[in-house]
Amino acid sequence: MADAKQVTACVLIIGNEILSGRTKDANLPWLALRLNDLGVRLREARIIPDVEAVIVRTINEIRGQFDYVFTTGGIGPTHDDITAECVAKAFGVRLLQNPEAVARLRTNYARPEDLNAARLRMANIPEGARLIDNPVSKAPGFQIGNVYVMAGVPAIMQAMFDGFKHELVGGAKVLSRTVTAELAEGKIAEGLTALQGRYADVEIGSYPSYRLGRFALAIVMRGTAADRLTAAVAELKALMRSLGAEPTEEAA
Amino acid sequence: MADAKQVTACVLIIGNEILSGRTKDANLPWLALRLNDLGVRLREARIIPDVEAVIVRTINEIRGQFDYVFTTGGIGPTHDDITAECVAKAFGVRLLQNPEAVARLRTNYARPEDLNAARLRMANIPEGARLIDNPVSKAPGFQIGNVYVMAGVPAIMQAMFDGFKHELVGGAKVLSRTVTAELAEGKIAEGLTALQGRYADVEIGSYPSYRLGRFALAIVMRGTAADRLTAAVAELKALMRSLGAEPTEEAA
Repeated sequence: MADAKQVTACVLIIGNEILSGRTKDANLPWLALRLNDLGVRLREARIIPDVEAVIVRTINEIRGQFDYVFTTGGIGPTHDDITAECVAKAFGVRLLQNPEAVARLRTNYARPEDLNAARLRMANIPEGARLIDNPVSKAPGFQIGNVYVMAGVPAIMQAMFDGFKHELVGGAKVLSRTVTAELAEGKIAEGLTALQGRYADVEIGSYPSYRLGRFALAIVMRGTAADRLTAAVAELKALMRSLGAEPTEEAA
Repeated sequence: MADAKQVTACVLIIGNEILSGRTKDANLPWLALRLNDLGVRLREARIIPDVEAVIVRTINEIRGQFDYVFTTGGIGPTHDDITAECVAKAFGVRLLQNPEAVARLRTNYARPEDLNAARLRMANIPEGARLIDNPVSKAPGFQIGNVYVMAGVPAIMQAMFDGFKHELVGGAKVLSRTVTAELAEGKIAEGLTALQGRYADVEIGSYPSYRLGRFALAIVMRGTAADRLTAAVAELKALMRSLGAEPTEEAA
């Protein structure tokens, strides 16, 4: 794309349960849409297990490559929740009990003794990190450098993200137009290549689907200039009609 | 885990549409379960855009780290389908028109002229690769080294995988038991840590969920020795009861 400044992000999903197939991740598509609304382009996602060496290495690999890193998972009270200590190691800082985090946790438990040693682990935060509010169950996430560490439970992750998203600095928002037709991908491919050649600033994606024995095709056009998108969409519709198919534009 | 030989895999999902949030990936959970059945442990997944430099670099990074790499997406006839040429570059081999692939594609089109230049691109296969059958729409995937390249459309990907899965050599199958209870994670965390300490060969995961204002907890135990799992599950149930919660074991 031709726009001057792209703001990029990588999502890091931490948890054996996604890799075992037990749990279907719901956080990635939610974050993808939200980031797009903010003008932040999700350029990669990784799903990794609860293994310290892998988490530390991955965080250090990606935090230099993208403007923002968002992690989900591994910040609860149990033995398999090791994200905070791994992030501390990745940044080379100490993991310390954070007094403000302790105070927030206290508000979640009626009796002081309920804030036991395991739950207090959730107040261990890398030195220099800033807490991320958790309006659902109080145990905070945190931000250190360009890394935002959030819970894996979708309701909590979403509440955390919505609490800090106004602070994220995005670039030009990517607009998207989708046109579908009952058309074989192979029939439109040549015309689509030519169209892409004329619109270098529009990212054209071709997505076939196959259902009940029929192929359908969705062409997605993404870019930051609305007028260029509109022109490209008009050409696309004409191309589809010239191939005998009736284009339908999906509502935005 | 204590077993001698783990066979590992990484899944690489190639496609802008997943990263834009437009399409929810359905291939990863399907592959995760299938691989597990075969004794192959999915240790990482990456979702990357249709960008040549990223695809080439990622394939070369992961094919040395895991026993198997499975890619989905980017092998259709349109300009944004660049997986085959990227895999060829990653392996340092030529991308050649494969006669067997051409022959297979021919069977999919009633009229010879329907196998146009764009569709013929799907017969471009890295030199030395072996074709993967596509019983749905003929255009083959391929295998080169430890990398299996499949379509992104779930019905096609699944048919491809099921066609070659008998050739994959797995290690000991990971068995899994899941026990749920209405219990706060923070209450069981300490006992769970002690249990994990006694069962180093059992991977114990704690997965809270939050629905309608209530927290529920699923404890997943995974390992290769059925008797050790049974013993750990018995101890877990006793632990839950000692905390006043009634354990329920999920059907396998």
